[in-house]
Amino acid sequence: MRDRLKIVVIGGGTGSFTVLSALKPYTHDLTAIVSMADDGGSTGVLRDELGVLPPGDVRQCLVALSESPKIRDLFNYRFEEGTFGGHSFGNILLTALEKVTGNFSEAIETASEILRVDGRVLPATLDNVRLRMSWEDESITLSGERVIDADHFANDPRKAQLSLEPTATANPTALAAIQEADLVIIAPGDLYTSIGPLLVIDGFGQALSSTAAKVAYVCNLVTKKGQTEGFSVATHAAEVERFAGMPVLDYVLYNNAEPMAELAEKYRAENAFIVNAPTNEFESTHYEVVSGDFLGQVAARESGDELPVTRSFIRHDEAKLGKTLTSLIPNE
Amino acid sequence: MRDRLKIVVIGGGTGSFTVLSALKPYTHDLTAIVSMADDGGSTGVLRDELGVLPPGDVRQCLVALSESPKIRDLFNYRFEEGTFGGHSFGNILLTALEKVTGNFSEAIETASEILRVDGRVLPATLDNVRLRMSWEDESITLSGERVIDADHFANDPRKAQLSLEPTATANPTALAAIQEADLVIIAPGDLYTSIGPLLVIDGFGQALSSTAAKVAYVCNLVTKKGQTEGFSVATHAAEVERFAGMPVLDYVLYNNAEPMAELAEKYRAENAFIVNAPTNEFESTHYEVVSGDFLGQVAARESGDELPVTRSFIRHDEAKLGKTLTSLIPNE
Repeated sequence: MRDRLKIVVIGGGTGSFTVLSALKPYTHDLTAIVSMADDGGSTGVLRDELGVLPPGDVRQCLVALSESPKIRDLFNYRFEEGTFGGHSFGNILLTALEKVTGNFSEAIETASEILRVDGRVLPATLDNVRLRMSWEDESITLSGERVIDADHFANDPRKAQLSLEPTATANPTALAAIQEADLVIIAPGDLYTSIGPLLVIDGFGQALSSTAAKVAYVCNLVTKKGQTEGFSVATHAAEVERFAGMPVLDYVLYNNAEPMAELAEKYRAENAFIVNAPTNEFESTHYEVVSGDFLGQVAARESGDELPVTRSFIRHDEAKLGKTLTSLIPNE
Repeated sequence: MRDRLKIVVIGGGTGSFTVLSALKPYTHDLTAIVSMADDGGSTGVLRDELGVLPPGDVRQCLVALSESPKIRDLFNYRFEEGTFGGHSFGNILLTALEKVTGNFSEAIETASEILRVDGRVLPATLDNVRLRMSWEDESITLSGERVIDADHFANDPRKAQLSLEPTATANPTALAAIQEADLVIIAPGDLYTSIGPLLVIDGFGQALSSTAAKVAYVCNLVTKKGQTEGFSVATHAAEVERFAGMPVLDYVLYNNAEPMAELAEKYRAENAFIVNAPTNEFESTHYEVVSGDFLGQVAARESGDELPVTRSFIRHDEAKLGKTLTSLIPNE
């Protein structure tokens, strides 16, 4: 293990959590750069009521990098009833810290101390912004991450512009982390509400394009109903580069294993399909393709229920992902 | 400084905070034993909605013993608006920890780690109890700490019985701490809603009476409207021993300095008067009396306001209190 291998993971909450957990055994220099457009759920209520920056995705990345199982459980705890019902404790903590310090970066630093985080979590921007998705030809505009997330697009999203209002300034520390990295991973995540809103911030495309680090995109396992139905692996990768505004990918990783029939059926019933790569789809692409069986255990325990319920999910396997991703770093 | 001087402070929130802060420079072995009858304000909402033990007074003692100013500010932060309006962050944290661990003692231990607490905070009981105050002759019963706290007693409170429902079992760790102490301080605090509800728990009187430690009561500075109006120092001390069920005090400390006229007038306007000791009142008492100027700075800053407001309070001076209290410990 090269202790000071510098790895940067770019994304939102859940996908980054998986990739960070996958890479944690390989380095003590992990940096998560987090999308800041979220305005749904507990995060949305805290933003609306208290004017803070979105804590949810940041919390998930902090938890992934925490060395204290006890405090991790505390951060993930979601109140079930009463005034606080639906709020996760970590979100409340980040909100209180932002109020006390008056500064989201300082809030993250103090939360990192409390959680004994091994690594860094950096917001992609420190501006208070809202996501916007517009189809100029159609004069259609969707406003707010929560709205866009719930939408079933009437028009081809590949023709839509994503933007942040007001225009966001990239966090310079995040851009510097990309420049200094040995490996940058773009985590799986919703294209139009998580990965896209980060990559469209001015400066990220340029940083990803100019860094000496290898840049790898871990493609989503399943499509999102009404948004990316029918998207192949290459379509996902093309959207990533469209948001970045230029070619940035050295590698695209995708899973080629089939999930259990019963599980795939359950997803199909909700209009979510396995993302696959039709023959010849990478013939003219500039990036290298790495495919393999990256499927994880099908049973994931959902936290936050009174009685823990075991539900089945199609998820990446952390061990397989970590091994393959670190193999992409050229040996010195 | 005798590093391992064992000092125990018994009380509720605010009074214990003052005494703990006063004694902190003198030892690294401070234990706070905390009254568990509170059911008002933020604490009351959390108890009612989530069935947890009362966090408020515990939080104040933890904060007093914290070595981290940054985390202390976080714990004391009170949300001003929205869903969380009126709740202090430390209360939310203790509640979440109790939910995660299923155990209030463990919640306090983890909170102590987060706050880098130098010392221990022990609940007087781990039972979920409600305070009751009854005048048997009058067939009057008041139920709940919040109700009793707000009441202006129609009858002499010295004739009332305080009890906890259901009957509380003393925390054995708290009783052991009293037995092993070099000095035990009963902090100033509301007689009928803070100090009394702790001392009436079976076992505390016996522990205070049998410990080899000196036991000192720091008498309140002012009376409480509709509750202890007209009570002298000796009356306060007599009520403390009535709750304990036996003579327990070696020393009674009281302030004999006059606050600024303007400030005293402000208190008088709210029917709160300086507690004083009429001539000869200690002639037949079994405890030693220590009087002096224990008044603190009159200006205290109130936290939790958007714009900090400077209000004047009659408060104990921590430095004067600490010096006098530690002088009560016999030299070895």
